[in-house]
Amino acid sequence: MTAPPWSRAWALLASMPINLLALLRGRRFNVAMTKIRNILFIMSDQLRWDHVSAFNPDSPVRTPNIDALAARGVRFTNAFCQSGVCGPSRISFYTGRYPSSHGVTWNSVPLSVQQRTLGEYLRPLGLRVALCGKSHVVPDMAGLERLGIDPASPHGVLLRQGGFEPFDRHEGHVAPPADSAYNNFLRANGYDAENPWEAFANSALDENGECVSGWWMRNAHLPARVKKEHSETAYHTDRALTFMDEMGEKPWALHLSYIKPHWPMLAPAPYHAMHDGKGPINRTVAERDAPHPVLAAYRAQEECVTFARDEVIERVRACYRGLVSELDDNLGRLWREMQARGRDKDTLIVFTADHGDFLGDHYLGEKEIMFDDVMRIPLIIVDPSPEADATRGAASTSLVESIDLIPTFLDALNGDAHAHLLEGVSLLPALRDSKAGTGRSCAVAELDYGFREARRMLRRHPRDCRAVMIRTHEWKYVWWQDFPPQLFNLHLDPAEQNDLGIDPSHARRRAEMEGLMHAWRTGLKLRLTASDAYVEAHTNTHRKRNIHIGIW
Amino acid sequence: MTAPPWSRAWALLASMPINLLALLRGRRFNVAMTKIRNILFIMSDQLRWDHVSAFNPDSPVRTPNIDALAARGVRFTNAFCQSGVCGPSRISFYTGRYPSSHGVTWNSVPLSVQQRTLGEYLRPLGLRVALCGKSHVVPDMAGLERLGIDPASPHGVLLRQGGFEPFDRHEGHVAPPADSAYNNFLRANGYDAENPWEAFANSALDENGECVSGWWMRNAHLPARVKKEHSETAYHTDRALTFMDEMGEKPWALHLSYIKPHWPMLAPAPYHAMHDGKGPINRTVAERDAPHPVLAAYRAQEECVTFARDEVIERVRACYRGLVSELDDNLGRLWREMQARGRDKDTLIVFTADHGDFLGDHYLGEKEIMFDDVMRIPLIIVDPSPEADATRGAASTSLVESIDLIPTFLDALNGDAHAHLLEGVSLLPALRDSKAGTGRSCAVAELDYGFREARRMLRRHPRDCRAVMIRTHEWKYVWWQDFPPQLFNLHLDPAEQNDLGIDPSHARRRAEMEGLMHAWRTGLKLRLTASDAYVEAHTNTHRKRNIHIGIW
Repeated sequence: MTAPPWSRAWALLASMPINLLALLRGRRFNVAMTKIRNILFIMSDQLRWDHVSAFNPDSPVRTPNIDALAARGVRFTNAFCQSGVCGPSRISFYTGRYPSSHGVTWNSVPLSVQQRTLGEYLRPLGLRVALCGKSHVVPDMAGLERLGIDPASPHGVLLRQGGFEPFDRHEGHVAPPADSAYNNFLRANGYDAENPWEAFANSALDENGECVSGWWMRNAHLPARVKKEHSETAYHTDRALTFMDEMGEKPWALHLSYIKPHWPMLAPAPYHAMHDGKGPINRTVAERDAPHPVLAAYRAQEECVTFARDEVIERVRACYRGLVSELDDNLGRLWREMQARGRDKDTLIVFTADHGDFLGDHYLGEKEIMFDDVMRIPLIIVDPSPEADATRGAASTSLVESIDLIPTFLDALNGDAHAHLLEGVSLLPALRDSKAGTGRSCAVAELDYGFREARRMLRRHPRDCRAVMIRTHEWKYVWWQDFPPQLFNLHLDPAEQNDLGIDPSHARRRAEMEGLMHAWRTGLKLRLTASDAYVEAHTNTHRKRNIHIGIW
Repeated sequence: MTAPPWSRAWALLASMPINLLALLRGRRFNVAMTKIRNILFIMSDQLRWDHVSAFNPDSPVRTPNIDALAARGVRFTNAFCQSGVCGPSRISFYTGRYPSSHGVTWNSVPLSVQQRTLGEYLRPLGLRVALCGKSHVVPDMAGLERLGIDPASPHGVLLRQGGFEPFDRHEGHVAPPADSAYNNFLRANGYDAENPWEAFANSALDENGECVSGWWMRNAHLPARVKKEHSETAYHTDRALTFMDEMGEKPWALHLSYIKPHWPMLAPAPYHAMHDGKGPINRTVAERDAPHPVLAAYRAQEECVTFARDEVIERVRACYRGLVSELDDNLGRLWREMQARGRDKDTLIVFTADHGDFLGDHYLGEKEIMFDDVMRIPLIIVDPSPEADATRGAASTSLVESIDLIPTFLDALNGDAHAHLLEGVSLLPALRDSKAGTGRSCAVAELDYGFREARRMLRRHPRDCRAVMIRTHEWKYVWWQDFPPQLFNLHLDPAEQNDLGIDPSHARRRAEMEGLMHAWRTGLKLRLTASDAYVEAHTNTHRKRNIHIGIW
């Protein structure tokens, strides 16, 4: 795959009079002046929307640098991930499709080689598309073998990596290979061990000077054994800048994907002790004592049992907040370095998260269950072009989904919309006009708990563990396969403490929400091999192909 | 792809005591004695179920040879195709999946290389899997190119051919290439022309001795310019026997796929004049004058305008009946020749059709619209093993779908069930026990009229032209995207003349049927890369992978 001569094409376009460009563009005059050349798609892992002060004035952490980004762009205050767990959520970001459409319903499910990804959409537009950090893509080795594709070939590598060139892939939720780039970096900086990530980044010295692991949350108050400039967060920030330096003036799309504030719960000094873990916990005895059957099963899983303890919540929250502060500091550094290189002028920047974290709310730990703590994501997009000047610092309350990013990128780069594959909508209009939105009536997310212990507790078949969230501005409905639904009135009960899922007086509302779910399912884009233009071009064409039907 | 040493494995298995075999098999004791080695999967194109006398005592054609097959096996009197048009119906037969799952929603849609097919399921079991006749598979050339697969490689050929080795592919609804096998056969038999199919098989001499085309239905009463032993039906019967001779005692699966009685409407002598076209036409002025909007659009298409004329119906029906008689005669020849070779003893035989034909019923021509004339298919399966002796000649009224064939074949050959991909159920239990059925509460079919002129008449977007049929024993419900549904009470109105789709007194029934539709949609198998066993093996396994979550 050789890159088309993008920069030459760009120079040619740039030399054209603006009205001619507008004609070429066809649909939107103002796009003709776009200056977007690069895309920086930043994801933090498991970052709750309400831990970003641009989204929540009462955030337990101040995030001045993320807030500064918001001031330069649009923050979407009703943005939702497509699943409350890393794998399916990320694959929705990377494919522009819902979990039911891309098939990665949970973390361990391989991403089919058949699914097209961000990289495959953007590379033909002349961009180098690379990953720095985590992707959670599980390669479809069986699919490669079935199709006779060499996994080690350049093509095979891209298919295994979800379409990203693995500039510096580092998952961070499991020990990396001993010779990974990050491990080598640590070694070069004097952290000598067989696996420096495990021995230093994920270890601490306890009060007795003993080396203890970040895997155990009781150690979350201790400082990691790496200096802050050698943490994963700092390292990936450095690597992103190295990538930009490598690229110079050539166009790129970089997925800068931080593992933190995802577990393991360990922050380097001074972040480990920067915050306390105090503050309100969103949970009621009533919701614990009359639980939904699947929530009851989740609450019996180890992570929820642990997070039911106040000492756990307090210690982990303090560390989590420290990791957020660390992330924010590094992002500040990134903004400054990008500005020094002029990259703030030509780069569309996205900042978001794959989902949130319960941290003990609702008597839950971790994620997956479809409360807003997990499903709502922080999303900021900065469009550097003059057309977006009017919206800088604005908030959009429109319902947005993670699958909207690829259509936004394609729109910003004048690429084809691939409307028969991509299930989201472009946010570019909202970036350039405060009155524009997505026109979406509900946000949808999915869960498959087939891989969880909860399935066994509930004695379910691996194929019968599905849930769908339908969230409007006012209501949240969660359909559970073969179990009662959940229903929350978000206006009256924004903390989602009062489940109306079996309340007799809300039957009509539930039916209405279920109708939205069915409409969503009906609209999934499953005809992958025929674009709308193809259908149009092949409508009623049998005669042209010398096929004569029903003629006397 | 080399074939496993099937015959050796078979000899080994056959030498084992029966109870040990039963243990190995695990689930069903009686399967241990199976003698099935080959599969002959016969499809006729556009053959109405009610034109087979085994299914309809009042059939306008007697079909003694198909009836003889039914006497040797089980006939399924409530079998339905998954779409009333060739492409999607066949791809459901060939993939074991619904159109929404395989993505081939209409004839012109390429079959994604991602979809696994009959050939891919059966070849690893040691069978040669070949096609003789029509498949209607449109190759996914873009998919091959995207994945870097050489379309001319053996693997590329199989992916282009829907998994079938093209032993002798002949579509028959369009002129074949000048040098096709059938054209060469015609030439070798003295039919000299650039395209003998067009000039002889699809041409006739009219009353004035002028050569006229089978493409025009006004010529349907004339004999084709080929002798009956040189027609497509006879040719493909011969070729199937050649294939069996080639294979000798080696195992195979052959898809013998006749184009007839599909148009072009021309039969060789004496079949052209064997029948008249008289008899009842299932249509009422009431249904014509108060039509469903999509039916109204279809009725404005050329084939329906033509089939509204009685002279058309009479002439075409006479020819159609002749083509059925021709097919039946050739099948009789096939049975005899197979018996002479001993192939009746070791071959599981399926006889079916991809869908029916309106022939003027309901003021419609052709197919697609979801009346039983089109959606119900004749289906006979002969299991040669002794375990099936008790059901010979039996009729099963259980609701059966075309997607049930692959699970049946895999069950018969002791193959893996591939339950995360295949959406049908095995019919083997019903072949061996009259009391066994499919346990299915409804049969489901789909339509996408995006490629039809009707779409333009109705001013619809190419993606918004979907319909779903939900058929129980008593009711038929057809959901039309953005249009009112159709509803028929099949007990009171088996001819489907009284559409209750907007009848106020049937709102509850419609809601119930819509519920079945939603349940069906929810159950589509879209997680292609993770089998149930994979989910089971990866449930709650993070600790084994040294990932520690939520532990204090």
